[in-house]
Amino acid sequence: MKTRKNSARDRELKAALTEVRDALLGAQLELKRTKACSVVLIITGVPSAGRSEVVNDLLSWLDPKHVSVYSPDREACEDFERPLMWRYWRNLPARGRIGVFFEGWYDGLLRKGVKDESKRFDARTLERINQLERMLLQDGVRVLKVHLHVSRVLQEQRIRELRASKLTRWRITARDVWFTRHHEEVDRVAKRLRAGTHEACSWHLLDGSHPEQRVLEVARLLLQEIRAGLAGQMAEPAAAPKPIETRPIDAAPQPVSDDQYELELEELQGKFALLTRKKRFEKRALVLAFEGMDAAGKGGAIRRVTHALDARQYRVIPVSAPSADELLYPYLWRFWREAPQRGEVVIFDRSWYGRVLVERVRGFAEPADWQRAYEEIVELERQWCEHGAIVQKFWLSVSLDEQQERFAARESDPLKRFKVDPEDWENRKHYGEYQQAAAEMMARTDVSVAPWTIINADDKKSARLQVLRQILGRLADEL
Amino acid sequence: MKTRKNSARDRELKAALTEVRDALLGAQLELKRTKACSVVLIITGVPSAGRSEVVNDLLSWLDPKHVSVYSPDREACEDFERPLMWRYWRNLPARGRIGVFFEGWYDGLLRKGVKDESKRFDARTLERINQLERMLLQDGVRVLKVHLHVSRVLQEQRIRELRASKLTRWRITARDVWFTRHHEEVDRVAKRLRAGTHEACSWHLLDGSHPEQRVLEVARLLLQEIRAGLAGQMAEPAAAPKPIETRPIDAAPQPVSDDQYELELEELQGKFALLTRKKRFEKRALVLAFEGMDAAGKGGAIRRVTHALDARQYRVIPVSAPSADELLYPYLWRFWREAPQRGEVVIFDRSWYGRVLVERVRGFAEPADWQRAYEEIVELERQWCEHGAIVQKFWLSVSLDEQQERFAARESDPLKRFKVDPEDWENRKHYGEYQQAAAEMMARTDVSVAPWTIINADDKKSARLQVLRQILGRLADEL
Repeated sequence: MKTRKNSARDRELKAALTEVRDALLGAQLELKRTKACSVVLIITGVPSAGRSEVVNDLLSWLDPKHVSVYSPDREACEDFERPLMWRYWRNLPARGRIGVFFEGWYDGLLRKGVKDESKRFDARTLERINQLERMLLQDGVRVLKVHLHVSRVLQEQRIRELRASKLTRWRITARDVWFTRHHEEVDRVAKRLRAGTHEACSWHLLDGSHPEQRVLEVARLLLQEIRAGLAGQMAEPAAAPKPIETRPIDAAPQPVSDDQYELELEELQGKFALLTRKKRFEKRALVLAFEGMDAAGKGGAIRRVTHALDARQYRVIPVSAPSADELLYPYLWRFWREAPQRGEVVIFDRSWYGRVLVERVRGFAEPADWQRAYEEIVELERQWCEHGAIVQKFWLSVSLDEQQERFAARESDPLKRFKVDPEDWENRKHYGEYQQAAAEMMARTDVSVAPWTIINADDKKSARLQVLRQILGRLADEL
Repeated sequence: MKTRKNSARDRELKAALTEVRDALLGAQLELKRTKACSVVLIITGVPSAGRSEVVNDLLSWLDPKHVSVYSPDREACEDFERPLMWRYWRNLPARGRIGVFFEGWYDGLLRKGVKDESKRFDARTLERINQLERMLLQDGVRVLKVHLHVSRVLQEQRIRELRASKLTRWRITARDVWFTRHHEEVDRVAKRLRAGTHEACSWHLLDGSHPEQRVLEVARLLLQEIRAGLAGQMAEPAAAPKPIETRPIDAAPQPVSDDQYELELEELQGKFALLTRKKRFEKRALVLAFEGMDAAGKGGAIRRVTHALDARQYRVIPVSAPSADELLYPYLWRFWREAPQRGEVVIFDRSWYGRVLVERVRGFAEPADWQRAYEEIVELERQWCEHGAIVQKFWLSVSLDEQQERFAARESDPLKRFKVDPEDWENRKHYGEYQQAAAEMMARTDVSVAPWTIINADDKKSARLQVLRQILGRLADEL
């Protein structure tokens, strides 16, 4: 009697598996075609709850060309050289693709939670995760989080079985043994972790006891997630930020004679070079972001900075409109790719602030999107600072008259003709709006770890000296 | 009188600089537009000969959005984890772009040459470089190599001047001092190095004494290089390889019962897992390349391999037609990006052999191009092996009848429908040509460091066991 009932249930399960598999494949191909969103599946759980098996099954069902798998490499040196979240950003799937993340940004947290006496997670860790997930969801990345669980008894039994054979014993790592030994504590801590990170993307706690049942459930959730993305279900738009008082962009000119300029330039470059060669700088990094209207002299100022450095020590990242490939990712992705390594000077010629400048003024981003960007940008800078970077931002302010003169000079000089394009003249028409956008940007993102400096750039030489002086001041304070 | 003559020469120089600058900018924009080729400028030289200054000048003349600069980071851990040339491949400019490489693949060679008693370079080092440059030139990358030189007297004087001021003293590194001390020896060794690597792309030895003169000369060479690329001047097509005797692709079936299969599969997977967990494997890597006609069972065989591994230890790279972005690079670029790290298992589901299979049969590559690929491919595999990788290649052979059955089964199964596309039916029409191409490929690339194994894949289960057995045999030999 029991057997017959069981086999009826088996048949049901089998039919359900076939159905979801078929639907999942269809949804994946549709996702690939429409590029409506990307999907990140984060899978966590206790050892022997079947994470690898579930992922293996899903991979053999889906078209593997459009899926990538990321598992944390705990020894990857390149990760340690860069801010914590870089490893996840660089592995984010493009729209149209699915990314499976073993542990994802929860990697190491359970063990950390158990080992910490207080059994709590520090607020910053949770904040970092919630902020990321909220942003991803709003930027077209749907995040599905699954935790697989089995009872202590079953876990021990599975490990016993694996240990029984020489051929499967290798599967048991020191980590697994630790998790089994701390089964109850891990459980409690995992529950608390889920509760603390349920805000933007909710967790699904699944029973890993039954191999087919568990993959069925994960597959259904994944299907649901892809379908939600296909139907355009994205996060609620963030609330507009509270109004903020802005100040007009203004900086006094600081004229300088040619002789004075040469003399001071060399002195500042020398001092700057000495500071970046300090032993202490090897654990830090310097990130400089240059913004300002066209022809404000960003390139010239940057060259005066880099001339002081060894070519091996710095990178200059010129930022223009995102490419077709870059548009398949959240807008901060291309900047995270360039996250500073320890000991490096990274200089952005225009930056992530394009979101709240050109994209806002020219209508390339929705108001809800550029409005939430202030917070997201500050978070990016904060995370880089947490890894040791010194972030300094410059607004090179050029008057409408001076800009006109420089445009004319550039256009008549064949050697500089590439520096003016029709877009620049178009942008010039929006000078007032840019000034307003810049004023709001500075009011909202001038934070103590990553301050703005406004430079009167009508006199190029004076502007270059001011930039170097400001950098020196920051470095002297920080090192 | 002398002054007047000098100032006339100055005016001439200035006019020449303006002229070349103008022409260079025009050529760069044309290069960007047409994407006719990419240009790599390798700049080597003795300290204080002005390498950095020349590059800085060029960067301020060109549109920096389409130029990238690469200087060797002698401490980058990610480089040491991967084959030697990976760092250069990953920094290659796409067509339409210019890449400036400080030292490039000559990095460290001068010091090495001086320190080596024999004062010679080992043949393999020169061969690796010549092969790379020959291939780049044939794949649309023009390589310009400039060595800047100054006399010992001038070098010492410049270093003395730098040392005189606290603000410039930092510019002198221990490296510079070493080079100054070994001026004559470095000279001799550099000459020998240039003579040994003149074959594909010739060297230009320039005098670095005069700041404006030297940048003028480099700029002219660069202009010439871009123009040659724009005019479609590429390398002479390589000579067709000598005819080679091929053998029909044939492998005896090795039938297996279901029970036997399950039993042996588990045993092989267990043994395989144990081998990859050996301490000694941490310094090696395993690269598996799977080729074979559509529906030969590559995916299934790969899954049986990966099931034995921890998800953190392996990567599967599905290879299909190159994307538009990938087509902007030499055809091996996308495979070099996936070069194995130490301790890793990298599995290619189709591989670089596409060049001499599908691209040959379907006419996507010119005969001269796929004919030279045999050597280039063997060189890639050899370089990976030199870094410790164990390379194993499989040809899964499926008969025309069996393939027909599998296509039909796939098409009628909604869960596998994505596995058959119209291209597959088209490829099937060329079955005979594929067999012939595969036979030639195996005759030409079956080298001892990276052997081919032909597997009769008409019986899927038997094929999977054979694959695992072969891998185990290789690993047991190598570890």
